[in-house]
Amino acid sequence: MPDFLVRFFPGEKQAGASVDESLYQVFIKTGLPVDASCGGKGNCGRCKIKIREGKVKSLKQGTLTDEEVERGYVLACQSFPRSDLVVEVAEALIAGGIDRAAEDMISEECLSDENLWESSDNAGLFEGNALTPLYVKFYLELPKPDENDAEDDLGRLERGVCKKTGVCRLTTNLDVIRSLPATLRSADWKVTVSMSEIENNFEITGVEPGRTERKYYGIAVDVGTTTVVVHLVDLESGETAGVKGAYNGQSVFGDDVISRIVYAGDSPRGLESLRNAVAGTINSLVEELVKETKIEAEDIKAAVCAGNTTMTHLLLGVDPANIRLEPYTPAANRFPAIKAEEAGLKIFPGSPVLCLPGVASYVGGDTTAGVLFTGMAFSDRLTLFIDVGTNGEMVLGNKDWLVSCACSAGPAFEGVGLKYGMRAMNGAIDHISIGGCGSGVSYTTIGSVPPLGICGSGLIDCIASMRKAGIIDRNGNFTKGCNTFRIRDSGEGKEFVLVGTGEAGCGSDITISEPEVKNLMRSKAAVFAGIRCILKMVGVSFADIDRVIIAGGFGRNIRIKDAVSIGLLPDIPLEKYKYVGNSAVKGAKTVLLHRQAREWIDDIAGRITYIELSTGNDFMEEFISALFIPHTDLNLFPSVRGG
Amino acid sequence: MPDFLVRFFPGEKQAGASVDESLYQVFIKTGLPVDASCGGKGNCGRCKIKIREGKVKSLKQGTLTDEEVERGYVLACQSFPRSDLVVEVAEALIAGGIDRAAEDMISEECLSDENLWESSDNAGLFEGNALTPLYVKFYLELPKPDENDAEDDLGRLERGVCKKTGVCRLTTNLDVIRSLPATLRSADWKVTVSMSEIENNFEITGVEPGRTERKYYGIAVDVGTTTVVVHLVDLESGETAGVKGAYNGQSVFGDDVISRIVYAGDSPRGLESLRNAVAGTINSLVEELVKETKIEAEDIKAAVCAGNTTMTHLLLGVDPANIRLEPYTPAANRFPAIKAEEAGLKIFPGSPVLCLPGVASYVGGDTTAGVLFTGMAFSDRLTLFIDVGTNGEMVLGNKDWLVSCACSAGPAFEGVGLKYGMRAMNGAIDHISIGGCGSGVSYTTIGSVPPLGICGSGLIDCIASMRKAGIIDRNGNFTKGCNTFRIRDSGEGKEFVLVGTGEAGCGSDITISEPEVKNLMRSKAAVFAGIRCILKMVGVSFADIDRVIIAGGFGRNIRIKDAVSIGLLPDIPLEKYKYVGNSAVKGAKTVLLHRQAREWIDDIAGRITYIELSTGNDFMEEFISALFIPHTDLNLFPSVRGG
Repeated sequence: MPDFLVRFFPGEKQAGASVDESLYQVFIKTGLPVDASCGGKGNCGRCKIKIREGKVKSLKQGTLTDEEVERGYVLACQSFPRSDLVVEVAEALIAGGIDRAAEDMISEECLSDENLWESSDNAGLFEGNALTPLYVKFYLELPKPDENDAEDDLGRLERGVCKKTGVCRLTTNLDVIRSLPATLRSADWKVTVSMSEIENNFEITGVEPGRTERKYYGIAVDVGTTTVVVHLVDLESGETAGVKGAYNGQSVFGDDVISRIVYAGDSPRGLESLRNAVAGTINSLVEELVKETKIEAEDIKAAVCAGNTTMTHLLLGVDPANIRLEPYTPAANRFPAIKAEEAGLKIFPGSPVLCLPGVASYVGGDTTAGVLFTGMAFSDRLTLFIDVGTNGEMVLGNKDWLVSCACSAGPAFEGVGLKYGMRAMNGAIDHISIGGCGSGVSYTTIGSVPPLGICGSGLIDCIASMRKAGIIDRNGNFTKGCNTFRIRDSGEGKEFVLVGTGEAGCGSDITISEPEVKNLMRSKAAVFAGIRCILKMVGVSFADIDRVIIAGGFGRNIRIKDAVSIGLLPDIPLEKYKYVGNSAVKGAKTVLLHRQAREWIDDIAGRITYIELSTGNDFMEEFISALFIPHTDLNLFPSVRGG
Repeated sequence: MPDFLVRFFPGEKQAGASVDESLYQVFIKTGLPVDASCGGKGNCGRCKIKIREGKVKSLKQGTLTDEEVERGYVLACQSFPRSDLVVEVAEALIAGGIDRAAEDMISEECLSDENLWESSDNAGLFEGNALTPLYVKFYLELPKPDENDAEDDLGRLERGVCKKTGVCRLTTNLDVIRSLPATLRSADWKVTVSMSEIENNFEITGVEPGRTERKYYGIAVDVGTTTVVVHLVDLESGETAGVKGAYNGQSVFGDDVISRIVYAGDSPRGLESLRNAVAGTINSLVEELVKETKIEAEDIKAAVCAGNTTMTHLLLGVDPANIRLEPYTPAANRFPAIKAEEAGLKIFPGSPVLCLPGVASYVGGDTTAGVLFTGMAFSDRLTLFIDVGTNGEMVLGNKDWLVSCACSAGPAFEGVGLKYGMRAMNGAIDHISIGGCGSGVSYTTIGSVPPLGICGSGLIDCIASMRKAGIIDRNGNFTKGCNTFRIRDSGEGKEFVLVGTGEAGCGSDITISEPEVKNLMRSKAAVFAGIRCILKMVGVSFADIDRVIIAGGFGRNIRIKDAVSIGLLPDIPLEKYKYVGNSAVKGAKTVLLHRQAREWIDDIAGRITYIELSTGNDFMEEFISALFIPHTDLNLFPSVRGG
């Protein structure tokens, strides 16, 4: 029994809470998309809320002004209920936070141009192939034993399976053998067989009497640091029956992998908390999917998870400590398949759960999934695959070779570390343009509601526009030439007012400061330096690249042209760019459905050579050269120079 | 807490007993070798004991005479304690029953002639080969990771294992991965690795810091219907560290596989009781071995069990019902390896337990183990392998082909169904010779104690001698020609007195009756008919056979010449006979120690063609022809005719 009831205003959401549960934890539990870039330590001030009714105990004022405190604002992560509560949060958040987030990660509707991924772009690798899912069910009529054919029951069953499926090297478990004699005879030798495949080992997992029409499903899961997305897949048709996404419940313990690793190591039962948090997120998404599609969780018979190396460690309860310590060695890049009950997933307990293999500490199963899905590992065309999130991973190569690297881009483009930065959810400014010297500002927001902050694509626009408008110079410093009320001193350096209090939905001006611009410059420089390094390592020039594939949340709403203009992405013909969307979950689904993909993904993980940028090469030099808009070497950006 | 204490006289054995526990169950629990050929139903009278002190409740008088009841005799299986008890049993039983029984099954000392098996007889199949046991431990020093070699911990470990062992396709479990980072680093990358092999799948099962000198063991188990034998094997040296044998605890539920199958199906929790009984027997033997060799049960890391098909079903808790129903289909001939804890074996819980594959309902893993061990499946020489126990199994063949059959010999040669028949334990007459018309009888007993009854080899001698002495004719009928006090009417036909009350250790005459002789004739006829049928099926004559291998308890003390003279074994040169002893446990040990044997045993089980004698061929005709001494066709026994 929770101690108190917490109601959220506006809206109808409510949740129970105990006295030792912070309101931030209650938010997470309720599925509300609240940020806490500091990991719930009370330092970032991102989880500001207003208490309308009731009493809380607040440990820390943090970044809140005295005036805010007087008006009833508290930091959710620092506040614990002492009575039933009514809590006020920004309306936009309540309205569509989670669903919008999920949609962002999964739908391509918002990818509105010709750079959209088409199924032919991976040469239809798996199109038209017969499905060979991780788990199948099929109906068999076995010949009855007689004096001329007294084969053992299991042998008879295996003979039937071999004839039906072509799979003849089979294993099984004792439970099946124990039930076999009675089932076969009671069903007059007509049965439905369940078979799952783990590491090329085919196991008969169940035998039911007669023909069962019951459908069976699998889940493909993108275990992202920020967002978790689950596809519920009908394993008979291969169709996706439903999709749900939510913030990774681990967010409460920190925004990026490093802070999660620290939490796992430093907090008592930290690893367990993180494990439970992410399993809990997957389970709540499964629960929603099960409800919506009117199936039973027991009918979900297999799971494939694609996560970065840290996320995979945490999901499996493996300490990721050495991922952040030189020389950055994960405990494992390949993990054995485990049972759902062992993974804490609330689907059929015996279901196999596969975590896709990674390459190194900072190139994980989400990246190999992307490489698999895009088909680049089997293509003649030289492809550069970029997945920019908190950590930017990239893979360069073709059918003959594959190299990868990761650059610590930092979460700036995800809005983290910026006062008005936010994730791409309702109320986020996603596009903005600024007139000369800030003479005018126009913008759009996700959900077309009053702006609460600015997300990744908006931030790219922002830098590009501020440079065009002459507000910042090529170093990212504010220029002295512009004289506008929008440029002012924040006390911690200059800042530019993007939206005034009156227009904004958050009760204050929305601004971007000089240090914040510098922060974004470092992020974009890291990505570009990574690209330069990986190309240099293999002696390839921009002109040699046939295709650039942009994966993940980063690619959602950005304008490639703007990203090129600030020097984030290389200046190559726009038509060479492709948005693939969430290639992690797409790759996971492919693995769930195709035996060939299960073989290939291991092969791919083994083929990718990892280059560690932080040691021994000229990443730092490239990084410093990229700390300009677009770059110190303008020859690299002919279209920008010309335009 | 047991309700009462039961003390056995003479000797010092005692045991607790509850009111609903029959004294027979107490016997079994205490390890005393009591017979109950009726399966504890009170019909056979074999478990007669005398109550010296205390009260029992007896359900049934059974075969006991009123006089015996008056003198305090009861049937153990029908009697339940109602106070503390002192129970009198034959001294010979108490003195050395179990140990002798174990020794019989395991030692070859009593096989005193040139027909003894020599290691060269299987062409030294596994001699001199490096050991590749089911479980190994080895010490590894791994290269430390650095910036040029940041492979994941698991990958590094696998690389080391591959280099050391040549085994490069490895799996592992999450527990190992979870402990790996800390173990490797705390041990400065010097570790001892445990690896087990199941179905060609090599799994790293543990990683310990540093070099551990702790020895590790496996067990090879012969799961016989009557006797269970365990070899404790040092997996590093391949040496047997200890051997123990005991009666299968299932004996309380019936003497042969059929009565056990019936019990499994008919009694509430019958299958479970049988499963627990045999696991309990193995566990008590393991416990004794562990004590004697001063090791820990946790150090036993693998088990290989060889049992007939029914025994394997029962050990694994699989209902064997269809084994006795036409067309005699077992649930399975091959079983997946399971963990010791799943099998109820009290060794290291994660140890793999392998049950050797069988061929059909009546040709099981004990037979394939024998075929493996003898090397007959890889030999040019045409070999006939015979394992005669309750059920006679035989395999005929060479490197090119193998056929097998089973004949329901019945347990007569194990002493079951005969008033004074008994197992080969202390007090059993093992050899006997009878003068013309019974003019004189000389005999020897196992343990050289006063005779209690007569065991298999004694019974063969007995039939041979009675025929020679003219007491019985070629049909097994008592002749009318002999006039001796030793031949008398028992009320149920004629009987011959082998030993008088005065000499006997059991308080009565030891006799053999005409119906009992007929019973033995049926047993020997079944075995011989089986041999004839299998030869006929493949068009082979006695002369073509290069070798006859006699396996199992049956071969222990018999004189081949006598067995031939009564027509039990074919009349071929004696030097072609070989006693291999307990080839089931020897085959199991080979599988425990050699990877090649693990592959071969599957291959052998697949190669053996099973012939069902009870249906469709001329077994019955052969059987009837063999119901004579030695046979209706004397041409088949030239040496008998001549002698």
